[in-house]
Order: sequence, then C-alpha cells, then structure tokens
Amino acid sequence: MTISWVPVPPESHFPIANLPYGVASRRSGPSGQERHIAPPRPVVRIGDHVLPLSVTGNGLFDAATLNPFLAAGPDTWDAVRARLIELLTDKAHRPWVEPLLIPVAEVITHLPFEVADYVDFYASEHHAANVGRLFRPDTEPLLPNWKHLPVGYHGRAGTVVVSCTDIVRPCGQRNTPDGPVYGASRRLDIEAEVGFVVGMPSALGSRVSTRDFADHVFGAVLVNDWSARDVQAWEYVPLGPFLGKSFATSISPWVVPLAALADARVAGPAQDPPVLDYLREDEPWGLDLDMEVRWNGHPVSRPPFRAMYWSAAQQLAHLTVNGASLRTGDLFASGTVSGPAKDQRGSFLELTWDGAEPVTLPDGTSRTFLEDGDDVSITATAPGLGGSRIGFGEVTGRILPARP
Amino acid sequence: MTISWVPVPPESHFPIANLPYGVASRRSGPSGQERHIAPPRPVVRIGDHVLPLSVTGNGLFDAATLNPFLAAGPDTWDAVRARLIELLTDKAHRPWVEPLLIPVAEVITHLPFEVADYVDFYASEHHAANVGRLFRPDTEPLLPNWKHLPVGYHGRAGTVVVSCTDIVRPCGQRNTPDGPVYGASRRLDIEAEVGFVVGMPSALGSRVSTRDFADHVFGAVLVNDWSARDVQAWEYVPLGPFLGKSFATSISPWVVPLAALADARVAGPAQDPPVLDYLREDEPWGLDLDMEVRWNGHPVSRPPFRAMYWSAAQQLAHLTVNGASLRTGDLFASGTVSGPAKDQRGSFLELTWDGAEPVTLPDGTSRTFLEDGDDVSITATAPGLGGSRIGFGEVTGRILPARP
Repeated sequence: MTISWVPVPPESHFPIANLPYGVASRRSGPSGQERHIAPPRPVVRIGDHVLPLSVTGNGLFDAATLNPFLAAGPDTWDAVRARLIELLTDKAHRPWVEPLLIPVAEVITHLPFEVADYVDFYASEHHAANVGRLFRPDTEPLLPNWKHLPVGYHGRAGTVVVSCTDIVRPCGQRNTPDGPVYGASRRLDIEAEVGFVVGMPSALGSRVSTRDFADHVFGAVLVNDWSARDVQAWEYVPLGPFLGKSFATSISPWVVPLAALADARVAGPAQDPPVLDYLREDEPWGLDLDMEVRWNGHPVSRPPFRAMYWSAAQQLAHLTVNGASLRTGDLFASGTVSGPAKDQRGSFLELTWDGAEPVTLPDGTSRTFLEDGDDVSITATAPGLGGSRIGFGEVTGRILPARP
Repeated sequence: MTISWVPVPPESHFPIANLPYGVASRRSGPSGQERHIAPPRPVVRIGDHVLPLSVTGNGLFDAATLNPFLAAGPDTWDAVRARLIELLTDKAHRPWVEPLLIPVAEVITHLPFEVADYVDFYASEHHAANVGRLFRPDTEPLLPNWKHLPVGYHGRAGTVVVSCTDIVRPCGQRNTPDGPVYGASRRLDIEAEVGFVVGMPSALGSRVSTRDFADHVFGAVLVNDWSARDVQAWEYVPLGPFLGKSFATSISPWVVPLAALADARVAGPAQDPPVLDYLREDEPWGLDLDMEVRWNGHPVSRPPFRAMYWSAAQQLAHLTVNGASLRTGDLFASGTVSGPAKDQRGSFLELTWDGAEPVTLPDGTSRTFLEDGDDVSITATAPGLGGSRIGFGEVTGRILPARP
C-alpha cells in the first residue's frame, strides 16, 4: 500500500488502506468557507477528511445515497477504489483534489444507504449460550437447531438510523406479577454487532453460495441493535422479537468495503457437527475485528468478532437457500458479538448477568441497563492491507427520556 | 351511489362503489389496438376494464407504482376518488373517457406499490388456538401474551410478489429423526390473510392511535403468506419464522381503498380481558369480509374476516407504540384468517389437521399440503356503499417444482 499525500493521524481508523464510503452534507457553521456539498452526497473518508465522490466523475454518485454505486457491482467497486487510491496517492493529482477535501468536523454524516430488508442473525455461540443460561437455566444452553443453521429473523428496515441519532426510550407492554402494564422500558439494552451491506441483487428463486459472497456483498458497518428486554421478553413467543427491537437500530456512517478487509479474513471456530453442504465455505469469511463497547465513554467490553460461530458468507447462503431474492441495500447483521470472557460480552444483559452484576463506571455510579442520558459507542479495528490497521469509526447513540 | 356509464357485470367485484387502484401495463397480444399504457402505470379498475389514472391529470400517477399517490395523504385520496366517480358516472365525460378504458383481459397487473416494511400479525383467535392445539397439545392453546397484544413479526418485504407470480417450491433445512437434512419443502402451505397498506408516513418516536388509523392507512389487499411448515418448525425457535416464509408472499393486484369499505366496518369479537388503553378503539375497525380459498379451483374454506380478534387499527397502534416510524408502502397483514368452523380455516395446516385429515378434491385426488402444479386462489367480498357488494378480486399462485 502506498502512502497518501493527505495527512492521516497515526491512530486514525481511516488510512489509505481503508477508504470507506458514506454520505455527508456540509455542516453550516462558523468556518463559512465556500467549498461545500449540499444536499447530502456520497463521500469517501481518509484520515480526518472526506472527499466528495463526484471527484471520480462517475454519475453513480449524483445521488443522496450509495445505492446506485452499490448496485453497480464488483467491477465498478474495484474501479472506483483504484481511482481513489490513484487520486489520493499520486501527488500529481494533489493540486486539484486537495481543495475538494473537507474536514470531517465540518460535515454531518447521513444514513449511507437506503436499507431494503434488514435481517439480524444470532451467530455468536457465547451470546446464544449466555442467553440460554439466563432464560432456560435447567436446559442445554443452545437450542437444538443452533449449530445446524444460522438462526435469524427480519427486523424493521425503516427504523435503521445513522450513528449520533438520539434514541428515545421506547414504551410498550411488559409483564408483571399483576399482569401486563404499559410504560417506558426499564431494561433498555444494546447489542454490539457487525452488519453486511448487499450491493448486487439476486433473482427470486436463485441462491447465493458462500463462494459468491463477495460478488453480492459490498462492505460492512457497525450495528447497535438497541433492545428493550422487558418488552421483548413478553412479546416474543412464538413469532420472535418485534417491538422490543423495532424502535431503532443504529449503524456507523462509514461502509468499509470488503476490499479493505482482505487481510482481516480468518477461519472462525471449528464447526461441529459438520454443517450441511450449502453452508460450507471453501475459504473462510471470518473477520479478525477487535470491537470495543464504551458506556458513557468508559470501555466496558471488547468483543472479538473472530469468535463468531457463523460467518457472514454462511448467513447469506442460508438467507437465500429458499430462493429469497436480495436487493441492493439489504442489511444483515451478525447478532450480538460476545466472546468467551466476561469482558467480551456485547450486550448489557450478558455483561451484568441480567442485572445481577452491575457495572461500575468511573464516576462511581453503577449500571445494569441503560439510564436516560447515557450514551453508548461501539468501535472496531481490523488488520488492514499491507500490515496497516484500519477501523470502522464508531456507532454511537444517546438515550433520551420516554415521551409522555 | 350513482350508476356508472361503464357496463359492469352483475357479479363483478368492481362496481362504481369500489374503484380499487393498481398498476398495469398493456399486454402485447392479438388485439393490436393502439390505445395502450406502457411502461406500467397506475390504473383504477371498474368492472372488466381499467382506466389509466393519468385521466385525472394528476402528476402523482406519472410513476411505476402507487407510492407517490399513497404518500399524498387523505385529502388527495378523497379528491382523486371523487373525480373518478364524477368521470365514470357523469355521461358528459363518456365521450373522452371511454376511449381510454382498456379491457382487463388486455393488461398485465404488477405489484401495485413498492413495499417498505412488511409485518405479519397473528390476529385470529381460532387460528392461534388451532396451532396451539396441534403443536402444544398438553398446554393452553393460546400463549399468555396472546389476548394482551397483537402478536406480530417482520417478514421479508423484498419477496412480496403480485398475484399470478409462480411460486417455486422452496428448499431448506428440516429436521428428521436422523438429524437435519436439506431438501425441497414437503409441507408447503398457504395462509389466507388481509393486508393493509400505509400511505402517510409517521415520524420516528411518534405513535399512531387507533383513532388516526384512516389518516395513515390507504387501503387493503388480499395476502397469501406461503409457508414451508417443515422449514418453519425447525428454524423458528427462538427468533420466529424466517426462511419458512421469506421465499414469497403474494398479494392481490387491486388495493381497495378504506373509503370503499366504510359500510363493511363491524365490531370484532368482545375482547376479554380488557385491552390496555393504547389498544382501545372508539369505533371498531373490524371488517365484514367473506373470504374464500380455492384449491385447484375447488372451494375448500370460507374464512370470515369479521371473526378476527385484533383489528388492523389495533395492530397499527401496537406497531407504533414504541415509536417505530411508518413509511409509505408499509404493508401489514392480519395473519391467517380462520373462523370457528372447520370449513372456515385459512391454512391447510389447520384444514387437514396437520395432514391427518386430507381434503378430497373433485378430481378424486386428496391433498394434505401443496403438490407441484397445484394452484391456490383467495378471494373476498364485502358490503359496499349504498347496499352494493364489492370485492378484492383474487390473489392466486401456482406451485412450480423445486429447482435442483
């Protein structure tokens, strides 16, 4: 990997090896300079700057979302990335490109793509087993189907929001010893996840094998699948989570292309019993991401994505094995990422063991579930190309009180 | 209701009292006449004809779907309906409007709107109790939450297809005494449902009360929620149905506006225990629809929609009580419509009591679940305005063999 002429701070998540895509508009502010991008337009991020993708001259970026670019497919993804690397490394381009760079502090990031269908999986063995131990203490922690297929369900695409969107504490029904009551959720939680973004659609009735994963999936984002545990516990039989999840799902603003994650690929845990043929991988699509969860700025967990039992390629093969079609903008998330250690758990349900083991924050207060005013940020870094280190930025959100 | 100058056959589902909306394109065929609408464009149906909605001069119909019209809201919905009634009843308009009519036999109908999020409820007590008796014979048929909230889940919006789309038998995992195997579903079923189409969006964090139902919901369609019972049975714990449903969901091509269903409103069954405040209705939104399910043309069931325990207005209030936003094109379906009698059951799972009581068809063959080549049509009629009878047309589909 060559060096960019754009200065990149040493610890930045966004060196030239990354080049993630997003959508941004110029923040109206004191700087008052004339360069601007408005309305929201696709950009690429490098270091502490964004560069409008109109720099490529490609009409796919004359849009308010990345969807047209995502739909264009792998050859276009490769060509655009190659052109951006050329523009940002060859000093011959510096004179005309540099004036187009905008400090990231001067932009607002928007939802980078229009979400078509949103699916959430349940792919961490440690998470599924923790949930089993908490809620079904007298039985095997894993349900019988768990090691045979990547369990998943559809979530609400219309309430996927971009990082920094405030999260209003949801109201709903929860059960009590005196029967169900209506009110604000008292057990508001997070789920630290990684989401994968479909670029190339597939036809109804066809399947996408694990081998064809990268022909359809463009890249990855961080996901916080906010969860109202009391609402969820009462509603979820027999059809699964609904209002306990559908009030909001936050994603990070930067879509890291699979091309930037080539050196992060690792084999996941051995799968025993062996999986059915359609779930086999020739080359593993595990990813060596180090995640971190910060509660009011304080790191409380470091989930290891490499420990996930099911890979994203297996999830996509499963999702389409019944002939379900893919659309550009489909988002499928991993489910809570939890590792084997206590400080690797990706939900507060697990981290506080259903509230029995509160977390103490540096200000001396303790937490079980989220309180109004709390914020949570999830970050991740990964091995980048050529020995570099890249990152996903963060997905963050703050809890506002329930509305009366 | 006045009389249209367009001839309408006596038993038609589509008298002037109905005027449902759809999207159609001219079928290329032997007639070879010059009047045509291509590409697909919004139309209204009357009797055995469709009329392109460009006749209204409204730019909202210069689109391939009804979404811009749906998004325009109740005042526009009312104004367009009033104008269509005027055009189709006042003979002064006949000379210029009549040449624009196209026989329905000469058009292809398309998906009438782009589906945003798809939610499926479970609102028939008879259906939920039948399923409980079949799968949990030693316990109460209804789960503890069922009479307190309308249980629902998100389905796959991207695989909602219009009536007449062939359904390829899905493949997937099912469990056997020797462990899970991969293959074509052997227990392919239907669910006869009614779906409601959201026109006006709502803001994230706000709620839509039962009172405001008709400000947001434009109309209704018939839904066949095809279900692979063997796939579903193995996958659905603990996160609900996924691949057992996501391969296809068929809807009827004609969206019947709520305005045409005003005289079909009835109170549903008494709700005991009383529901929480946010689920109460000032005026009931039950609908007196007579549905019919035909298996290879033979009527096998007549589900009464008026028997549904939860109304669509209650479902919408529940769906948004946590602040989840609505988008134009959201579709939420009732769940299987089953009445108390055996010949009122809206799924073959119930109708054949999980295969134990096969249905005999007039050709002498018997059925438990769907065989390749079978077709299923669901129809419904309702009291229309002014003592008329209106209908939904049909949602139909044929089973093609699984792909190797």
